[in-house]
Amino acid sequence: MVPENYDIVIVGAGPVGLLLSTCLARWNYKIKHIDMRAEPTPTGRADGIQPRSLDLLRNMGLKRAIMENEPAKVYEVAFWDPKNGQKGIHRTGTWASCPAFIDARYPFTTLLHQGLIERVFIKDMEDNGVHLQRPWRITGFENDGKDITYPVRVSMTYVDGKETEEVRAKYLFSGEGARSFVREQLGVKITHKDPIAHVWGVMDGVVRTNFPDIKMKCTIHSDAGSIMIIPREANMVRLYVQVASSTDADWDPRKQVSEQEVQEHAQKILAPYTITWDRVEWFSVYPIGQGIADRYTLDERVFMGGDCCHTHSPKAGQGMNTAFLDAQNLAWKIHHVESGFADRSLLKSYESERKLIAENLLNFDAAYAKLFSQRQPSAGEVGAASTQTSPDKPAEENEFIKMFKASCEFTSGYGVAYNPNLLNWSPSHPFQHGLFLSNEKKTTNLRTGRILIPATVTRVSDANPVHLEQEIPLNGSYRIYLFAGIPSAKSQKAIADFSSNLQKRNSFFAPYRRSDESSVDPHERHNPHSHFFTFATIFAAKRPDIDIDGLLPEFLARYYDHVYADDVVDIRVQGAKAAAHEKMGFKIEEPAVVVVRPDGYVGCVAKLVEGSGTVDALNGYFASFCTQGGKGSESARL
Amino acid sequence: MVPENYDIVIVGAGPVGLLLSTCLARWNYKIKHIDMRAEPTPTGRADGIQPRSLDLLRNMGLKRAIMENEPAKVYEVAFWDPKNGQKGIHRTGTWASCPAFIDARYPFTTLLHQGLIERVFIKDMEDNGVHLQRPWRITGFENDGKDITYPVRVSMTYVDGKETEEVRAKYLFSGEGARSFVREQLGVKITHKDPIAHVWGVMDGVVRTNFPDIKMKCTIHSDAGSIMIIPREANMVRLYVQVASSTDADWDPRKQVSEQEVQEHAQKILAPYTITWDRVEWFSVYPIGQGIADRYTLDERVFMGGDCCHTHSPKAGQGMNTAFLDAQNLAWKIHHVESGFADRSLLKSYESERKLIAENLLNFDAAYAKLFSQRQPSAGEVGAASTQTSPDKPAEENEFIKMFKASCEFTSGYGVAYNPNLLNWSPSHPFQHGLFLSNEKKTTNLRTGRILIPATVTRVSDANPVHLEQEIPLNGSYRIYLFAGIPSAKSQKAIADFSSNLQKRNSFFAPYRRSDESSVDPHERHNPHSHFFTFATIFAAKRPDIDIDGLLPEFLARYYDHVYADDVVDIRVQGAKAAAHEKMGFKIEEPAVVVVRPDGYVGCVAKLVEGSGTVDALNGYFASFCTQGGKGSESARL
Repeated sequence: MVPENYDIVIVGAGPVGLLLSTCLARWNYKIKHIDMRAEPTPTGRADGIQPRSLDLLRNMGLKRAIMENEPAKVYEVAFWDPKNGQKGIHRTGTWASCPAFIDARYPFTTLLHQGLIERVFIKDMEDNGVHLQRPWRITGFENDGKDITYPVRVSMTYVDGKETEEVRAKYLFSGEGARSFVREQLGVKITHKDPIAHVWGVMDGVVRTNFPDIKMKCTIHSDAGSIMIIPREANMVRLYVQVASSTDADWDPRKQVSEQEVQEHAQKILAPYTITWDRVEWFSVYPIGQGIADRYTLDERVFMGGDCCHTHSPKAGQGMNTAFLDAQNLAWKIHHVESGFADRSLLKSYESERKLIAENLLNFDAAYAKLFSQRQPSAGEVGAASTQTSPDKPAEENEFIKMFKASCEFTSGYGVAYNPNLLNWSPSHPFQHGLFLSNEKKTTNLRTGRILIPATVTRVSDANPVHLEQEIPLNGSYRIYLFAGIPSAKSQKAIADFSSNLQKRNSFFAPYRRSDESSVDPHERHNPHSHFFTFATIFAAKRPDIDIDGLLPEFLARYYDHVYADDVVDIRVQGAKAAAHEKMGFKIEEPAVVVVRPDGYVGCVAKLVEGSGTVDALNGYFASFCTQGGKGSESARL
Repeated sequence: MVPENYDIVIVGAGPVGLLLSTCLARWNYKIKHIDMRAEPTPTGRADGIQPRSLDLLRNMGLKRAIMENEPAKVYEVAFWDPKNGQKGIHRTGTWASCPAFIDARYPFTTLLHQGLIERVFIKDMEDNGVHLQRPWRITGFENDGKDITYPVRVSMTYVDGKETEEVRAKYLFSGEGARSFVREQLGVKITHKDPIAHVWGVMDGVVRTNFPDIKMKCTIHSDAGSIMIIPREANMVRLYVQVASSTDADWDPRKQVSEQEVQEHAQKILAPYTITWDRVEWFSVYPIGQGIADRYTLDERVFMGGDCCHTHSPKAGQGMNTAFLDAQNLAWKIHHVESGFADRSLLKSYESERKLIAENLLNFDAAYAKLFSQRQPSAGEVGAASTQTSPDKPAEENEFIKMFKASCEFTSGYGVAYNPNLLNWSPSHPFQHGLFLSNEKKTTNLRTGRILIPATVTRVSDANPVHLEQEIPLNGSYRIYLFAGIPSAKSQKAIADFSSNLQKRNSFFAPYRRSDESSVDPHERHNPHSHFFTFATIFAAKRPDIDIDGLLPEFLARYYDHVYADDVVDIRVQGAKAAAHEKMGFKIEEPAVVVVRPDGYVGCVAKLVEGSGTVDALNGYFASFCTQGGKGSESARL
């Protein structure tokens, strides 16, 4: 019997596998997705969606479905500690979980249990024709190359072993979690950043308590120990209690404690406040060490992501969020390679980009967790910080509070920055052109490898105020924003030249036009000409003054739902004539073009000038990783 | 056979009947709800949800389900007219559909077809155990009083006449629309405010056009006639074309025009822009005159609402929105009478409150529609207004634009104001007390009979910024807000006195306490003590400085999820120390209490002072319409 062929086999239906599947299903890939469990996570496990992840879920059209579950939202974190000369615990400070210095649309952490999140993905996958096969597990695989198109053989079995299946695939992805069969078979080792491991007790449930911050995220230290409180959906609360540490004299990574012991421990820490449990929904005790896989792939055919590649303390709430971004990063790269847009070498950037992020996370997490695990040396230490409630009034801070503040940007997800590479232009990029702008040279506020700065603008077609960075969905396209400045003869010429050079045979754009362009639905908003590019134009003008057909050549006017007026006031740049231009660091007399990767991270920024220069610059940028685009351009010969 | 007894029979499953059913179903009434149609409205009909209605739907927990349909949102209206000495039509102005001078959470009109809206209600009703019986119609009814509890006999039949049913009910409600069997049987006449009638052609569909404002609401006048454009969900557009008027020489209210004629007419008006139709989803031609029923009820047992009571031009988009508010007004009043909270005479206020609104609407609508129906006398008239784009730059305006602006508050729904009566305290209320504050005397910005001014505050329990006016859902309870000002010994005493007087045997509150109070779920947020009252306290302080258990007596501290910090900046009162207090017109040194009706309209406002005075004042207010509450209070003897 000939094995059936798939584009990809995905193992594991946790956050990383599901997000990958959800993306690829939308782009019509043939997916075999298996999971060992008979059903989604029933209780417990990961539960925190960070601000940046909520942006991503919204960009995928999944935010509303998540929010229907009425998750808890954490806006503030409270610190409770002993106080000099006083009994019990006292609130020594509070801090925004995503402070105002971070320009976030959703400055809060969204908390609901992993199973509810999984169900949102599963429904979306099913709407796109992919059904999870469960409970099935992988039993073997090999990139045997016996089929040049489907080089990977994968065998799997129903968990009872009575039924087996063998398929061939272009790719295999392991989202199996920390105990990965695939990683083990590949012989990929885990490196431990921090040798200290901990045993954690975690409990979800409904409590009765007079502790006033029970609906806040709290880190509590007392002479009896430390706990972290995290509010949940449906009046639940999660308590993390550290049970043992490898620095203990009697360290045992398999140390067990009972539900009752954890509850008693929590009661002691919270004294004089009382806490009793109406119901415990989930209880688990598990050892966690920091660890990172040495490789995310060996052959760019068999990939791994999520907990399979990085494990760490649950304290910073980063596991699921990092998993989401692993999957998103890989999804569009596989898509671009398989659709013939990008060179196969693009896939190498999955490991280089995502492993760096995991390393940064673990460095941070190790320091954060270590500090949290420490018993508070003395109650008096936190006294000075006790009155602080706002960033405007910095007080003397203890190490823990300092660490927490410094890490806000990281934990919110906005600190993620990919290093310069072929995708993320920099002054060290192999292709150089005089029109490129860069943060290094202070010619733009945008940083390549970082997400587009959020900006609210008015959509010209229907006068709706919209979030510019969300206007183009996660559709696999590069997002090309023309910040056109004030309409003028000069800027109009620059736009017209950009448009005509774009349409020349050898441009980065021309080879990737749709073959069915002439029959595209006139209401298609994003991809009328190409599946790989969406164009948006932002004018520094009032909406009623923007005449789309008068200002834009026919080609760009076709994107009439992506023409915007930069006429909305932004409190971060009060007094700016055009807030979006100002936030990006563009003068309204000097148009610019911003190329944003399909995942929302800035690829390159260039001046938008009369003549062919701007398209020449973009030709060179795209030629560095595309199969055809821009390669005929004279300037693009590297 | 003994007829089955119901609390209410509702006839008609349009917006008014459905909203009534949805409310009463939540409060566990036994409902028989019939509709002549076999299924929800498949296409066309009403489609505009005004800003105020969206507030209401959110308060009922239905906004998210409405928004899932991805409706069009109208933020601006554009006016197109002939221009002096130029051919064709020109944009002569634009105006926000809900301008910034209105303090609205959702400053836009939400457009989606009525059937989608109906489905949201039907699902919610079904979740609460009420199932529509369709296609059934009413065949007879009588308030024969043969059963003192269920005085109304109602007979109905399956539309094919083969099956019939007779029931008895406490109430009968007709939401049958303009052609109401119930109204006809009651002999209630329609009075026409404006004798002029019009025939309208309406068309929903998908078009191709180069008219730039096709995704905006537009009113277009040209020498060829007038149309109104309204964008819709799913790339659709609605065109209203006036086909005939009773002022025409050849007036015929049954005049018919074909789809093609309307399309040709629209094309002539829009010239030189072109418009062609890919698909027509709905087309209808119908005569409309302004009209209002002389009575909404004769006996406070058989009620009518919605189009059954008021018909008018579709231009202002008010029909469905008025219907929603008719139903909401009646729902809680029936609930309060049937639950023993209020005197039966409360039901008289349904007609007096809602008929006034309809009369205001019709007066407005007649003037609005009349103006809209006029052919623009000369193209030059609008020249002066053509450059106007913002309220800051008023220009010379023609009558139409002026009328439109003046009516914004009305069309957004925020202009609705109920007159003073027993529910809406005023200096002419039968009960007077020196502590009452009133807008007439400039002692508060709140106006009784108007909705609570919106304000964003921080919920103390979880640090979430929230919309204060939405925090208590439409749960049938009076909403009692204590604007407690700055925490001080004085204000703390006033709050403590309020709390203790509230709990005295003869207070307005005491008789309506829950019999199961001792076994109420500790997580019950709104009604731990009474189904008729929810208490909220707002302090003019920063969130971390508010110690709920320290500042509030145990009774009020029980509403820990309804304690708020007035510490959020509001751009409408920049520089205010406590924005919510300031917006309501309260000084932060002078606490006040605001009583809000279950439908969100302000009932009365009083100073919150030490001693029994504040509760005495409220005793008198409630005693004027309650069955028991406050009647024992000395001050409440009217």
